[in-house]
Amino acid sequence: MGIILIGERINGSFKDVGRAIQQHDKTVIHDRVAKQVAGGADYLDVNMGAASRNADDYAWLVQATAECTALPLSIDCNRLDMFRTGLKAYRDTVGDRSVILNSTTAEDSKLVPLLELASEFKAGIIGVVMDERGSPQDVDRRLELGGKIFAAAVEAGLSPTDIYLDPIVMPVKFMQDQPKNVLNAIQQLTMLSDPPCHISIGLSNVSSKAEERKLINRTFMVMAMAMGVDAAILDVCDEELRQAVATAELLLGMEIYSDAYLKAYRQRAGFGTAAAAAA
Amino acid sequence: MGIILIGERINGSFKDVGRAIQQHDKTVIHDRVAKQVAGGADYLDVNMGAASRNADDYAWLVQATAECTALPLSIDCNRLDMFRTGLKAYRDTVGDRSVILNSTTAEDSKLVPLLELASEFKAGIIGVVMDERGSPQDVDRRLELGGKIFAAAVEAGLSPTDIYLDPIVMPVKFMQDQPKNVLNAIQQLTMLSDPPCHISIGLSNVSSKAEERKLINRTFMVMAMAMGVDAAILDVCDEELRQAVATAELLLGMEIYSDAYLKAYRQRAGFGTAAAAAA
Repeated sequence: MGIILIGERINGSFKDVGRAIQQHDKTVIHDRVAKQVAGGADYLDVNMGAASRNADDYAWLVQATAECTALPLSIDCNRLDMFRTGLKAYRDTVGDRSVILNSTTAEDSKLVPLLELASEFKAGIIGVVMDERGSPQDVDRRLELGGKIFAAAVEAGLSPTDIYLDPIVMPVKFMQDQPKNVLNAIQQLTMLSDPPCHISIGLSNVSSKAEERKLINRTFMVMAMAMGVDAAILDVCDEELRQAVATAELLLGMEIYSDAYLKAYRQRAGFGTAAAAAA
Repeated sequence: MGIILIGERINGSFKDVGRAIQQHDKTVIHDRVAKQVAGGADYLDVNMGAASRNADDYAWLVQATAECTALPLSIDCNRLDMFRTGLKAYRDTVGDRSVILNSTTAEDSKLVPLLELASEFKAGIIGVVMDERGSPQDVDRRLELGGKIFAAAVEAGLSPTDIYLDPIVMPVKFMQDQPKNVLNAIQQLTMLSDPPCHISIGLSNVSSKAEERKLINRTFMVMAMAMGVDAAILDVCDEELRQAVATAELLLGMEIYSDAYLKAYRQRAGFGTAAAAAA
């Protein structure tokens, strides 16, 4: 089984999507969804960014995204009321399709209610290894917080396959010792349980403010896959990134080798189809 | 410190070099050396391939390579008499410049005399984790043979920094479970000693007979670097591979980040200079 690709593009931090949220313009959302479907996304992340703080706007965005695709969503926000509103809009739109809550930290005041919500809505969760003391920079603290989230999630009734741990990718430009710590943390987080939970990264942060963003993204991505990452929030429309991921999947035995593997993944993903051509 | 790049191109298996060996045509050798210098090689591997079985031809090839560069060589052959002839030609041409013997296996009949030769000529060695029973396909046997070579080399007076262990990269096209085993073996071989020895791979073999050779090479290379590889025999003139390596070096903290890191490595390597432009 290949890596789980979570499309990052339905995010109000992008100007086009931010404007669409404020104007409730579905055509922009539907177009960005179609491009990510064509890019081979397995999930679509839905995040308002700073475009609005209104839970009704989030319900609108979730519905606008869910209604035009068969893909499951990652409900990405940081307020409990917004999670609840977003989840309700999702269930009203698509019924019992699978869903991930993105994200909780290890802080009890966030972790406990979000796990209750996950239980209630039969959702997976992404658990980010930080707490009230902030983001850890070393490997050990990442493992400690990852272990805490994992144990609490299992206790709340989630199975390991519903749990995604996120070791917090930080920008190589500003914190150059962090990518290596994240790689080491990934490798150790994979040993937390058997069967393992998912390890997911927010990829694009590694190249924040750097000049060679795409090269840094795709290089870090396959390094993280070597260490055990099996899910990522990323730009599924970046074709060189998708080629690198497809190649790493072969090298890790996640997909069967064929000489035409790039063609095969493009067909699977829809690159070169009408939807992709419109991108 | 960055990864150690060993240029693969002075090899009689390439038609141009094979012909040059048979005709003792130095201009071809000097040109291929210059291109690899421009590509940023740290060492140049010198291998006759099937072009000749004559030790005098090997002495010629070593001298033709060494005389036109300040880079150290990797003396790559599989007969003790040829190692000795090659090393003597090298020392006669360049004096006490550093050198690697590539390669020995864990088989006593090869390992013992090659370590004696390494001691005598103050050379490093690449130890390939195979023996009279052939190439191992699992991780454990790779570790066992790597440990045997390492222990024998230290016993013979080599320091860990003179020892390169090669976990044997195999083609993803024909043995798809092997690249992952190699990655796992790399990670465990790094823990063999403190200070660690080098872990080196013969990169191009991973893509043997595959259609997407360069993409597979550069993807596996950075995955292997994530696991702990710090040396490789590869095509230093493949610019996309070099960009991937330079990026992985940043992400692993082996080089200091700057926005212009690609420009910096190109200048270091000589891409874009007269030598590279002639490539």
